[in-house]
Amino acid sequence: MQESSNNGVFCDLSLEENMKIDVYAAYNHILDKDIKDKVIIVLDTLRATTSIITAMKNGCKEIIPVDDINDALEVSKTMGSHTLLAGERDSSIIPGFDMGNSPLEFMPDKVKGKSIVMTTTNGTEAMLKASSARVVFIGALINGEAVAHEAIKQRRDLKLLCAGNDRKLALEDILTAGAIIDEISAKSNAKLELDDLATISLNLYRQHRWDLVGALRGSAHYEALVSKGFERDVEYCCNMNIMDVVPTLKDGVITV
Amino acid sequence: MQESSNNGVFCDLSLEENMKIDVYAAYNHILDKDIKDKVIIVLDTLRATTSIITAMKNGCKEIIPVDDINDALEVSKTMGSHTLLAGERDSSIIPGFDMGNSPLEFMPDKVKGKSIVMTTTNGTEAMLKASSARVVFIGALINGEAVAHEAIKQRRDLKLLCAGNDRKLALEDILTAGAIIDEISAKSNAKLELDDLATISLNLYRQHRWDLVGALRGSAHYEALVSKGFERDVEYCCNMNIMDVVPTLKDGVITV
Repeated sequence: MQESSNNGVFCDLSLEENMKIDVYAAYNHILDKDIKDKVIIVLDTLRATTSIITAMKNGCKEIIPVDDINDALEVSKTMGSHTLLAGERDSSIIPGFDMGNSPLEFMPDKVKGKSIVMTTTNGTEAMLKASSARVVFIGALINGEAVAHEAIKQRRDLKLLCAGNDRKLALEDILTAGAIIDEISAKSNAKLELDDLATISLNLYRQHRWDLVGALRGSAHYEALVSKGFERDVEYCCNMNIMDVVPTLKDGVITV
Repeated sequence: MQESSNNGVFCDLSLEENMKIDVYAAYNHILDKDIKDKVIIVLDTLRATTSIITAMKNGCKEIIPVDDINDALEVSKTMGSHTLLAGERDSSIIPGFDMGNSPLEFMPDKVKGKSIVMTTTNGTEAMLKASSARVVFIGALINGEAVAHEAIKQRRDLKLLCAGNDRKLALEDILTAGAIIDEISAKSNAKLELDDLATISLNLYRQHRWDLVGALRGSAHYEALVSKGFERDVEYCCNMNIMDVVPTLKDGVITV
């Protein structure tokens, strides 16, 4: 299962060197030394990074990821009245918060011009874990092509850090990693050096690219969300490349 | 990618209940609470578990896995003159040891009736990590069918703990996990509940079952071993179901 660069159509963001791509299945699988000064894309397709990308596309000013509920309340108190609290535990909205973690809640009428303090079970943990990197992009299926292009422009090795599900691999994040690697493979003439999980991700995405929702059926996070009535969220999260924004995390704040 | 029980031919080791199967890609991905009292198969196909199974098939009395070189020397001193030291660092034999970690070294003339103290980079760490489980089986491609049957007989949920490669996923262990799950699916009428990595493993194995060596080409551990001249080891390790022994680890000692 070797991967070499695609010899077809290139965009002008090409590299001429090698590009190593490593995939980590959950935020607790990566060591701090593998983060520092690296280029990282954080993925939490169901649903945190999809929600963040949607919010940013819809005019949200900034998002501050925090790891627990009390921190979220404290941080929001220090900010202006235009600040919203967003987050979930066990997939449901946190009582007293303005919104949960459904991307369909982050519409312009709600988020335009607003700051959002956000805490989720896996996604915000992964973002905080990545914060010592040189560059942290926020990725999902909905901005896969756009985030791949930003990664190519860095002309550096790349690490895809999946949020995972309760410290374990989540299929939706692996498919997303595969989609981004597929795009990099098509649009860069760098010679890609994939680690084993990157190879598996690309293989799996290419096998299931025409039916991502079908591929997710039976997977842990998909089934948990559908059982709670979030089937429309899952379908939305599987829309490839519908958004061109690539949020970045810098100094604890996500902006575009 | 849902998996239900195979409705074809069953062996008499059938279950009639659900069987959850979880796969962990590296020994540092599993929490102690997920080990205690569980049924675990440790996999380190390249090469520690393949070597152990080969040694046991060839009449080795017992193997004691230890996590560092000094411990190996100390433990071996407390044992009789029939004790051998085996192990590797960075794939090569440890200086002063009787053998490295090549399964082709563990032939009857060398190991019959002997005790072996063994330390490897990832495999022995995984075995030690698993030691608080109810039952710990030692698995690889060479005994995949046999270890699957022993797991079915336990009539309990199952965890496949891959050694991985330097705390990351290793493709050869994932293919082995898939082979064992495929065998369980064929020979048990339990309804299998696979976690996401178990689903991926089964899918990947079924895609590559007819050319496992080809599937491994380009993967990190395969390439590292081949570059050091261990190509014959890799080919040997990919021989499916050539051995019927299932070593177990109990109280720190591996026996059959």
